[in-house]
Amino acid sequence: MAVNPDIQKERQSATFDTEKLTEVVYGGKKMVRRRRYLQNIIFEDKYLNSFPPWWNRTRVQQYDTAIKKNVYLNKLMQDLNITEFTEQAFISEAGSGHEGNPLGVHRTMFIPTIEKLGTREQVAKYVEPAKQYKIIGTYAQTEMGHGTFIRGLETTATYDAKTEEFVINSPTVSSIKYWPAALGNTCNHVVLMAQLYSKGKCHGIQAFILQIRSLKDNRLLPGVSAGDIGNKLGFNAQDNGYLKFDNVRIPRESLLSRYAKVERDGTYTAPETPRLAYGTMVFVRALIVGQCAKSLAQACVITTRYSAVRRQTEIRPGGEEPQVIDYQTQQEKIFPLLAAAYAFIFSGNMMLKEYIRINADMEKGILDEMAALHGLAAGLKAFSAEVTSNGIDKLRRACGGHGYSHASGIPKIWTYITPACTYEGENTVMYLQCARYLVKQYAQAARGQKLVGFMSYLNNPVKQRSALNDALKMSDLIEAYEHTAARLIKVAASRLQALVKGGMPIEEARNKCGVPLVTAAKAHTQAYVVKLFSGVVNRPDFDHSVARVLEALCKLFAVYGINERLGEFIQDGFLDGQQADMILNKTLSLLAEIRPNAVALVDAFDYSDKILQSCIGRYDGKVYEALYEYAKTSPLNKEEVHDTYTTTLKPLMEGKLKFDSPAARL
Amino acid sequence: MAVNPDIQKERQSATFDTEKLTEVVYGGKKMVRRRRYLQNIIFEDKYLNSFPPWWNRTRVQQYDTAIKKNVYLNKLMQDLNITEFTEQAFISEAGSGHEGNPLGVHRTMFIPTIEKLGTREQVAKYVEPAKQYKIIGTYAQTEMGHGTFIRGLETTATYDAKTEEFVINSPTVSSIKYWPAALGNTCNHVVLMAQLYSKGKCHGIQAFILQIRSLKDNRLLPGVSAGDIGNKLGFNAQDNGYLKFDNVRIPRESLLSRYAKVERDGTYTAPETPRLAYGTMVFVRALIVGQCAKSLAQACVITTRYSAVRRQTEIRPGGEEPQVIDYQTQQEKIFPLLAAAYAFIFSGNMMLKEYIRINADMEKGILDEMAALHGLAAGLKAFSAEVTSNGIDKLRRACGGHGYSHASGIPKIWTYITPACTYEGENTVMYLQCARYLVKQYAQAARGQKLVGFMSYLNNPVKQRSALNDALKMSDLIEAYEHTAARLIKVAASRLQALVKGGMPIEEARNKCGVPLVTAAKAHTQAYVVKLFSGVVNRPDFDHSVARVLEALCKLFAVYGINERLGEFIQDGFLDGQQADMILNKTLSLLAEIRPNAVALVDAFDYSDKILQSCIGRYDGKVYEALYEYAKTSPLNKEEVHDTYTTTLKPLMEGKLKFDSPAARL
Repeated sequence: MAVNPDIQKERQSATFDTEKLTEVVYGGKKMVRRRRYLQNIIFEDKYLNSFPPWWNRTRVQQYDTAIKKNVYLNKLMQDLNITEFTEQAFISEAGSGHEGNPLGVHRTMFIPTIEKLGTREQVAKYVEPAKQYKIIGTYAQTEMGHGTFIRGLETTATYDAKTEEFVINSPTVSSIKYWPAALGNTCNHVVLMAQLYSKGKCHGIQAFILQIRSLKDNRLLPGVSAGDIGNKLGFNAQDNGYLKFDNVRIPRESLLSRYAKVERDGTYTAPETPRLAYGTMVFVRALIVGQCAKSLAQACVITTRYSAVRRQTEIRPGGEEPQVIDYQTQQEKIFPLLAAAYAFIFSGNMMLKEYIRINADMEKGILDEMAALHGLAAGLKAFSAEVTSNGIDKLRRACGGHGYSHASGIPKIWTYITPACTYEGENTVMYLQCARYLVKQYAQAARGQKLVGFMSYLNNPVKQRSALNDALKMSDLIEAYEHTAARLIKVAASRLQALVKGGMPIEEARNKCGVPLVTAAKAHTQAYVVKLFSGVVNRPDFDHSVARVLEALCKLFAVYGINERLGEFIQDGFLDGQQADMILNKTLSLLAEIRPNAVALVDAFDYSDKILQSCIGRYDGKVYEALYEYAKTSPLNKEEVHDTYTTTLKPLMEGKLKFDSPAARL
Repeated sequence: MAVNPDIQKERQSATFDTEKLTEVVYGGKKMVRRRRYLQNIIFEDKYLNSFPPWWNRTRVQQYDTAIKKNVYLNKLMQDLNITEFTEQAFISEAGSGHEGNPLGVHRTMFIPTIEKLGTREQVAKYVEPAKQYKIIGTYAQTEMGHGTFIRGLETTATYDAKTEEFVINSPTVSSIKYWPAALGNTCNHVVLMAQLYSKGKCHGIQAFILQIRSLKDNRLLPGVSAGDIGNKLGFNAQDNGYLKFDNVRIPRESLLSRYAKVERDGTYTAPETPRLAYGTMVFVRALIVGQCAKSLAQACVITTRYSAVRRQTEIRPGGEEPQVIDYQTQQEKIFPLLAAAYAFIFSGNMMLKEYIRINADMEKGILDEMAALHGLAAGLKAFSAEVTSNGIDKLRRACGGHGYSHASGIPKIWTYITPACTYEGENTVMYLQCARYLVKQYAQAARGQKLVGFMSYLNNPVKQRSALNDALKMSDLIEAYEHTAARLIKVAASRLQALVKGGMPIEEARNKCGVPLVTAAKAHTQAYVVKLFSGVVNRPDFDHSVARVLEALCKLFAVYGINERLGEFIQDGFLDGQQADMILNKTLSLLAEIRPNAVALVDAFDYSDKILQSCIGRYDGKVYEALYEYAKTSPLNKEEVHDTYTTTLKPLMEGKLKFDSPAARL
């Protein structure tokens, strides 16, 4: 395969072995090999390659293709006996290309919820058939009027002791379920979250299982209205749907009753609330951090390779046009995000590990650390989603006009990941959740309590001045981040305290401190990521040349972050004006230091062209040839002479176009 | 019309007369009336209302609809004798709803370029037929390999004296024209920008006019390949196209020869370069600033109204859920962007006025001020496009999950305006252009020269400390902005100077200072906007209550901007830590001050629901009813039982789905 010479040159000039970094990313040689093996099966599969390209599919075709592909992928995983989560993720990554999987929620939410909240009988009745796809389900929680605030849901399930049934209703327009995946057409069963009423009393949100469509012909059952919610910015292969109930009666056994129970006579027994939900949320948020990392990494691959191939604007009159990646301004757009992508990969991995460790403790009844991890996970989810969503869009624009075309592949990656800012807990709510934990920890530290783990920096004595100098020691950088985070937590906490002392109810005071609380949570989260990244870089088992290049990225991540939020670091004089100058200089010199390794650093993510689906991010750098081929596939090019010409343009040109005089009514 | 009571209450509590602010926005009572009159014609037009909603159109339907609508709108403007630019813009705003107009470039670029660069004969030959749509043209400049850097274009026009023809070629893949609007299907003529070769010498980029499609049947002429470039993030009603030449011969008279001439024998005469292009660029960039303002304003309308209707998350347990707009964090997302929208409206208007004034001077040969305006326009275009693109996306996310649906209308507004960051001069290149002007001005000031107009702040003696206090005087805020801009220009200029003194070629030095130069340009531009906004607020003819609310917005724009870039303001101690605290406090109290007027402030933009096309931004606040109606229009809901069910899901559920064992090859 002939490769564009510019990009070839980049690969030859790298100072480290790309493959070794790939092993760091995926956790070792064996995993890298296994990932490639599994993904190659998908890439070379005839059936999966038989669909027309996604960018030209109608909405209906997008949905249909996604179902067909995913049914096939599920079968394939079954046949290959791939049950391990990581391996399944490799296959999805290779096979479903940012398109959304209408059958995903069935596996990830419907079945697990029944397993977790159902009685043994309920599990037996539903889970096995679900695993065999005899029934297909979704998880119907979000309503038109309520998303993140679950207690506000309005759907009602009212127990009727006479018939031993629950009566399900959507009492208002805003109570209509809206957004659940697979609800539009795919599912025939739902796990339904609704307010349980019995004996005239509301017992809060409980989970029910019920059927909404016929298993014979997929028609809606009586009293149920449901359908797709219409076209969206992205995820159009997914049939996110709506669901409305009009006096739908379901048997008493429909309440998932492992914890919550309603007796025949309507007596409700409160569940012993196990904080299991805590664990699930942490797990899901860890996955989101990892997914953000991947999406950001993919956009970095595309932008970096394109910037190495693209030449533009002679720097010296009459001289050769330089590679765009040689512009300092371009480096400043890409490299800090490349650093962030690595940082989030490591953060996501760490969270999963922590989750597994702490979850095992929880099973034993030890709940201490889960609260800490839960607070951190909320912040990390929001931070990674925010940086990723903004970052990918910045990268798109860094590709100039071509970034706007679906040929670049970036819009697809972005529309796929940007909802991470709002789903599974809206970002601002997440930051505030994190901040609430921080304020508590701050109060404990202020009372002289010793904090554990990463929070222990709140116990540090307050230093006046940073020793940071141009040796740029990571310990000094981490100290600056922790000092600033501690200060901002203090600012928010003191403000809050003052308001409460002044007689304001705590809830209102929290709202009046919303902005400083979010600021504190961001500072804390970023400090955590800097420290974590630095820890990874210093792992002794790394190849020396790999460690060096990761260290440069880690430092860039740290200094760029300071420069972006400079005011916070210098407002109290912890860093001074001269150190701020130094930070800018270091940022620029780190960009130059990373420059020769940029292409190798993105190659190391090991994303096949088949995953990227980008004309401008191709491994071989044949950008312009690919753009030309892309253009030819346009649906507008199917006929050389278009209907619009015959019906409208030709009559216009011949002066024969007639309208009922549009101005007649004037 | 019954209105949601929450939003009704908002309107009643406003402290100013919305209509009076609308008059400020559109330049007086008469204009407001005229705009409504013209737009109502469009809104009530039966033909224009006869198309299916845009969000469900296929690519081909989008294109077809756009052509039909715009042909009709053109006819309507003709019939109503609407020739004034502003009035035409009112009609387009009402009629073409962020969809892109494939016939727009014909009017705005094709005809004007011939008028400007053509001889009298050429104008006579092409312009009148073009105005009557006997021919339809586009402006073919951008190539796959070159956009902003025009001198790098590769298409060649080689003069052949034997036949007195130019031979047009696309010598490389990257030389293929790519992106020009209307090129995909619509146009039959192009103004072509190509490198003129004659007698073996290159004479740089010149403009040619030629036909590419048959007037009889729209088929491509021999040697021409052209078509649509395929699907994009947005603008899919527009047939942006590609165009490739293979030895296409056109007569000598195809060179637009008002300035550049090629004699029969191939002798080339250099044009006396009139800097007309300067003026056009300023004009186009002024329009972009205005368009950004409008798009940002529209997204603010939607987000603000929705935030007034949406209630979420009880602040006190068991209490009523507050309107989302009562959350400080939500206010902080919306109000600074609302302030920016007003700032950009005023900036766009000012630029147009300045352009008209200075252009009149230019016609008289006075070129002095155009350079200043050109530098400023570059900065303002980049700044407004950047703030708008990032801002609208932030607003989308501030609408939570619903923002992601096309039902919100925000994705459409955003995809329509985000290309403003890259078209008509990529933003970073624009900032650098602006910075280059600033560095020159700085050098002049350093030599003791008196600078004119807005640049005169570079003549100010450097003060050590700002007097800014919590009276928050606009003059102090402006001084802080100007001081900081001057400092950052100095930082960049000194850096540049030092590198050049050290022996680095100026071009390379400029690249090595790219990041600080961009920083300086942004600081300058924002300082300009703050000053301009403040000037508008203080216009004596304003109604007092309108002036008060605009003043609050202006102050918010200023303090929020300082807070965002705090480091730059405090690094040299011009503002100190206490002043920084005060700035944050003022930001928060201004949010609270603006809160009661928020809905009235967005109402004042006077955007009809028909323009917004948003379920959640409706004037009457009937958000949830509209979302439910939107869902029902989904293309996936056409049939209750979907093909995908019959072909795939049902067989899956019945265990009858067979694939050629996918794992067989393993």
